[in-house]
Amino acid sequence: MAINPSLLFLSLLFLFNGCLARQTFSSQQSQNECQINRLRAFAPQTRIRSEAGTTEWWNPNSQQLRCAGVSVMRQTIEPNGLVLPSFTNAPQLLYIVQGRGIQGIVMPGCAETFQDSQQSQHQSRGRFQDQHQKVRRFRQGDIIALPQGVVHWSYNDGNERVVTINLLDTGNSANQLDNIPRRFHLAGNPEEEQRQLRRLAQQMQGRSERGEESEEEEGEREGEEEEEDNPSRRSRHQEEEEQGRESSSCNNLLCAFDRNFLAQAFNVDHDIIRKIQRVRGNRGTIIRVRDRLQVVTPPRMEEEEREERQQEQRYRHTRGGSQDNGLEETFCSMRIKENLADPERADIFNPQAGRISTLNRFNLPILQRLELSAERGVLYNRAGLIPQWNVNAHKILYMLRGRARVQVVNHNGDAVFDDNVEQGQLLTVPQNFAFMKQAGNEGAEWISFFTNSEATNTPMAGSVSFMRALPEEVVAASYQVSREDARRIKFNNKNTFFFTPSQSERRADA
Amino acid sequence: MAINPSLLFLSLLFLFNGCLARQTFSSQQSQNECQINRLRAFAPQTRIRSEAGTTEWWNPNSQQLRCAGVSVMRQTIEPNGLVLPSFTNAPQLLYIVQGRGIQGIVMPGCAETFQDSQQSQHQSRGRFQDQHQKVRRFRQGDIIALPQGVVHWSYNDGNERVVTINLLDTGNSANQLDNIPRRFHLAGNPEEEQRQLRRLAQQMQGRSERGEESEEEEGEREGEEEEEDNPSRRSRHQEEEEQGRESSSCNNLLCAFDRNFLAQAFNVDHDIIRKIQRVRGNRGTIIRVRDRLQVVTPPRMEEEEREERQQEQRYRHTRGGSQDNGLEETFCSMRIKENLADPERADIFNPQAGRISTLNRFNLPILQRLELSAERGVLYNRAGLIPQWNVNAHKILYMLRGRARVQVVNHNGDAVFDDNVEQGQLLTVPQNFAFMKQAGNEGAEWISFFTNSEATNTPMAGSVSFMRALPEEVVAASYQVSREDARRIKFNNKNTFFFTPSQSERRADA
Amino acid sequence: MAINPSLLFLSLLFLFNGCLARQTFSSQQSQNECQINRLRAFAPQTRIRSEAGTTEWWNPNSQQLRCAGVSVMRQTIEPNGLVLPSFTNAPQLLYIVQGRGIQGIVMPGCAETFQDSQQSQHQSRGRFQDQHQKVRRFRQGDIIALPQGVVHWSYNDGNERVVTINLLDTGNSANQLDNIPRRFHLAGNPEEEQRQLRRLAQQMQGRSERGEESEEEEGEREGEEEEEDNPSRRSRHQEEEEQGRESSSCNNLLCAFDRNFLAQAFNVDHDIIRKIQRVRGNRGTIIRVRDRLQVVTPPRMEEEEREERQQEQRYRHTRGGSQDNGLEETFCSMRIKENLADPERADIFNPQAGRISTLNRFNLPILQRLELSAERGVLYNRAGLIPQWNVNAHKILYMLRGRARVQVVNHNGDAVFDDNVEQGQLLTVPQNFAFMKQAGNEGAEWISFFTNSEATNTPMAGSVSFMRALPEEVVAASYQVSREDARRIKFNNKNTFFFTPSQSERRADA
Repeated sequence: MAINPSLLFLSLLFLFNGCLARQTFSSQQSQNECQINRLRAFAPQTRIRSEAGTTEWWNPNSQQLRCAGVSVMRQTIEPNGLVLPSFTNAPQLLYIVQGRGIQGIVMPGCAETFQDSQQSQHQSRGRFQDQHQKVRRFRQGDIIALPQGVVHWSYNDGNERVVTINLLDTGNSANQLDNIPRRFHLAGNPEEEQRQLRRLAQQMQGRSERGEESEEEEGEREGEEEEEDNPSRRSRHQEEEEQGRESSSCNNLLCAFDRNFLAQAFNVDHDIIRKIQRVRGNRGTIIRVRDRLQVVTPPRMEEEEREERQQEQRYRHTRGGSQDNGLEETFCSMRIKENLADPERADIFNPQAGRISTLNRFNLPILQRLELSAERGVLYNRAGLIPQWNVNAHKILYMLRGRARVQVVNHNGDAVFDDNVEQGQLLTVPQNFAFMKQAGNEGAEWISFFTNSEATNTPMAGSVSFMRALPEEVVAASYQVSREDARRIKFNNKNTFFFTPSQSERRADA
Repeated sequence: MAINPSLLFLSLLFLFNGCLARQTFSSQQSQNECQINRLRAFAPQTRIRSEAGTTEWWNPNSQQLRCAGVSVMRQTIEPNGLVLPSFTNAPQLLYIVQGRGIQGIVMPGCAETFQDSQQSQHQSRGRFQDQHQKVRRFRQGDIIALPQGVVHWSYNDGNERVVTINLLDTGNSANQLDNIPRRFHLAGNPEEEQRQLRRLAQQMQGRSERGEESEEEEGEREGEEEEEDNPSRRSRHQEEEEQGRESSSCNNLLCAFDRNFLAQAFNVDHDIIRKIQRVRGNRGTIIRVRDRLQVVTPPRMEEEEREERQQEQRYRHTRGGSQDNGLEETFCSMRIKENLADPERADIFNPQAGRISTLNRFNLPILQRLELSAERGVLYNRAGLIPQWNVNAHKILYMLRGRARVQVVNHNGDAVFDDNVEQGQLLTVPQNFAFMKQAGNEGAEWISFFTNSEATNTPMAGSVSFMRALPEEVVAASYQVSREDARRIKFNNKNTFFFTPSQSERRADA
Repeated sequence: MAINPSLLFLSLLFLFNGCLARQTFSSQQSQNECQINRLRAFAPQTRIRSEAGTTEWWNPNSQQLRCAGVSVMRQTIEPNGLVLPSFTNAPQLLYIVQGRGIQGIVMPGCAETFQDSQQSQHQSRGRFQDQHQKVRRFRQGDIIALPQGVVHWSYNDGNERVVTINLLDTGNSANQLDNIPRRFHLAGNPEEEQRQLRRLAQQMQGRSERGEESEEEEGEREGEEEEEDNPSRRSRHQEEEEQGRESSSCNNLLCAFDRNFLAQAFNVDHDIIRKIQRVRGNRGTIIRVRDRLQVVTPPRMEEEEREERQQEQRYRHTRGGSQDNGLEETFCSMRIKENLADPERADIFNPQAGRISTLNRFNLPILQRLELSAERGVLYNRAGLIPQWNVNAHKILYMLRGRARVQVVNHNGDAVFDDNVEQGQLLTVPQNFAFMKQAGNEGAEWISFFTNSEATNTPMAGSVSFMRALPEEVVAASYQVSREDARRIKFNNKNTFFFTPSQSERRADA
């Protein structure tokens, strides 16, 4: 079968997009950011309350997050809560820890492919047809991939809280600003979040020395202090008064623009702009919707997913195997979501030990552009992960359930971490640092994010380990053991990534 | 139609070139370089006079240029002026603000494809045939793309001054040196420019704190101070004396080499080397040619351009759609120029508001390697650009004619800029910062450079805006407006990027 | 001939791998790292003795290495010496200065393709068949390319010392840690090396100012001082005592893990783990093997090389020209070695002047991923290299034999280096800096590494120079010489990169 040359041309161009994104300021790390002597598993430092949920940030100044070049946020959305539209300066991976809902992203330049001719409760005049971009359902176990600068909103239409873990890859080449995480809010009142992030950014500015781990020990603080605005903000507010804008609590992107300009840009009355710019009350960035949102969405998620994947495969088939062709239709219908919780989805599985489901650029192609990947892992009671290191990525681990004892070893042979990681805690394992993990009595479940679209591990023991790849004589000479022992070291563990608790271990537990 | 596999192989290799260029030192930004509280539109700080023109540099220490990782220079070339051969450590985009002339670049390893058998005035002995690389004509409105490290010269053969704006993308991955702009001069006396750039670099070294915008307020200074050489230079000059080089005012690359070496390298008499190394007078880097330069060039520009583009298309067609094949012929004849001034060239056009012509890797493929793009925009009397943000690039705007009121808003919802940008001023809009623009009474024309080969904007209003992509219910809930108002916000402006002054506005003007 | 679409798809994906590797922390250079006023050719600063060899590091704090973003190490392996398995946080190029031996690398996820059913001396029980990954022979003149994070070991099975020069490209995008060179040792006692590198890293931390070249003047020091451990290490040792690990001199990656964990992971008795974790004696990272290592290797190197290259070509042919397909078989059998010493291998040759053999992504495809290239050069008695600059890479030169006078000129026209480079010395030529070289009376041989997979030079004189590419009239006007002189400057040297000593020079020598 021959390839259509022009399609190939386009696909090549498109593929190179991520690659040719400018690298400037992809790395704002100072000289020795990864000289890590001690790691800590830690909880978010800052919690910002909104009307219908909370936003919690891990301290982006912590040495481990600066070394990895990422920021991490946890969001809780109460039933009927709407996370107002915003975008970030960094690509994001979002993991749905619990709950279900709907979300939309706005891909620039893409068509409004969803049409809604239903009559809503508030609407009495005839059959007006709304049009908007695709809306997706999400549920526990989903990973959602979001490019930088792309607007995102979500809504909890379920009965339990939605909890998400958001990784912001500020060190990504797609972020040409500095390493500070930035959310650009398009609605609502993000003032509290802005103030807290500013405070953390100022801390980031104030020191480049080591030892800031102590900061993390403060754990979850409410951060109600520091009410004073900085001078530049105050002067802006004064300007606002002069220009006749009424709201001093409107801090989203639309508020700062001149009202006359906006009226012209939207071609609407000043009254409507005044409404947009007056943000009533302190409802933050997650608001409670009075009546339930009626947004057109496809009927059932599983079908939708199946169809999207089929479409992707059909596409690959007809397009001569190239992944996409740069045309809008394709870019605009790119799959951005995958569920990792389903046990059937596991890529590595051992009925005695646990399972790991991985998500990378091979099974979610948009990750190629985002330079990120992820895994969701489960370890059963006291089973473990063989010591290993990641060849090409940092690993940011969040414990979903249970606990595990983790050891992390740096290039000096020092155990920079040897402790339990508890549910709700975060731990970074820097690139090339060796680590191992053993679940506690109740097992352990986690989500890990990787700063490479194709993260690769090398285990130290087992059937795909470096030991197995060494000649027996080299093992014997390197460790000064007999050939027989070398053979045992190489071949005794037939597993790939897991180990199961030994008999003695089990007995000790009993 | 089938593809020749070996051509595909080569084209893949070639395409990856830009991509695999090393990223080291592509980012010399310190920790919080883009924490911008206030922007200023500003003029060049330093002006260096040469015999037949001037070179002006914007202060590369200004926070906005450091955040964007670029330097900007403006060059004025008088009629009959020759900009002597030089290259820079960063890819360049050059916009011809006015005038016309010829220019040549030296692509490493490419053949001398232009032959000249005409007899010049100074030449009386028979038919000697000169050979050199391609020479191109340029005129007002052209953008010229120059890779780093590639020699460039130009000559004003017209009757009015040539004025160019040069963007140096020092933050580009192709620049493995630090973020300081460097011009490597191969002829002439660049001492004055070197001294001034050294001074700016020392300032850059001396501070990493904020608030240096005050520097910019000094505006255009002549910079005749600071005559003292630094010690390392002085010792070099002493060495020169010892080695018998005569000129103490020769500071180009050829001057520092040992004369004996050069005589061997060029295989010429010491006398000729002595002439090369003795730079008479203080003529700088732009000299006046005594008689007009007689350089062989194709007859008329429009024909040349048409032919180049046809060649490119023929090539794409026969080569199975891949953009180039890495073979020298193709690389060497790559198109590096395009005219953006022609109204017919517009990509976005509204007869009431204005037009925008864009240049990116799709219409000038070399930009893919340079990771840059550009747009030339025109706004008519009091028309405006809808508020928008750039998803993947910084924007560096230079006002060519007229003035516009511009607002720029950061992630905190602060208007970091709200002022006029006047003709001849520069303003950076950092990635993701929202901005809008409204022309003054005489309209406005500008050139903008982007630090991505495929810069993408998301407007806030109009037919391709994020508002349009949101479900009506989400708009209503987010801004706490009625469904009817939400519909107006989404649909009232049918334009894409422009808005036209409202009736009231027009009346207010009258 | 048509292309199989699915293969093309895979090859595209694979090709993008290197490209999409995250760029974070690829650049740890501080603001003005490349503001170089003076270069020095220098020898290693630190020597670490092991039982059967030495490891010497050039000071990674030297301004020139920081500007280039690389670290350099020299290793000497005595006959029968085994360099224990380790990996680094940066891609490496290794040049074999002298000697021969065998080496193995462990590609993650690749199969054990070498089977050994021979009975070794120590093995009396029947026909046990060992399996391991490919083992390669190496000899003087080989370059070996190693990705970051990939385990590497080597063994001197010859009769003379093996000497290698290792370039670690810490500034590479594949290294997401900071710019400090890190070796992760999987066996042996790397304590001495760790201490010395820590000391250098602390120096790196302690200063960001210029002028550290004085450091280099200390030359080769033994570095026996600074015996005190730092606190974090001491506490680890205390922990070890509590946990019952016996060895306080075990500092490799396996030592820090809990013994119970390791026993489970390897599925072996605690006794074997105890042996692994007890490193007897202070034998360092290069140990003497009691009896010669009996590792299965192919019979003769020349045949092996020929076959590998044939395989590569067959592969390219059948796969439609794309370089690799991302499947494991191909990735796993990627060629990583090439000999540059053979005179027949020369790419640039002049019987009067010398020869240069280049290695880049076109003749060793793995270099595309490593973003590195190399050249081995030979200059005969008093012959020289034409002044030139590198368009897209830093150059790190190591003198193998003889000496050469080298001049390096920066953008200010200052000769930042004008001295001899002696055998065993290193010199960096930053990107775009002009340099020339003339061999001493005994000639000169060197190896140069480049921080780009396709480093490109532009000579100033000769048949491929920028002078040749300029129109004669531009040369005449630029240097204020006559047309006749301009013609001589352009055309007199018919060579490409070399110049031969002039008659007068030869006489002066006599």
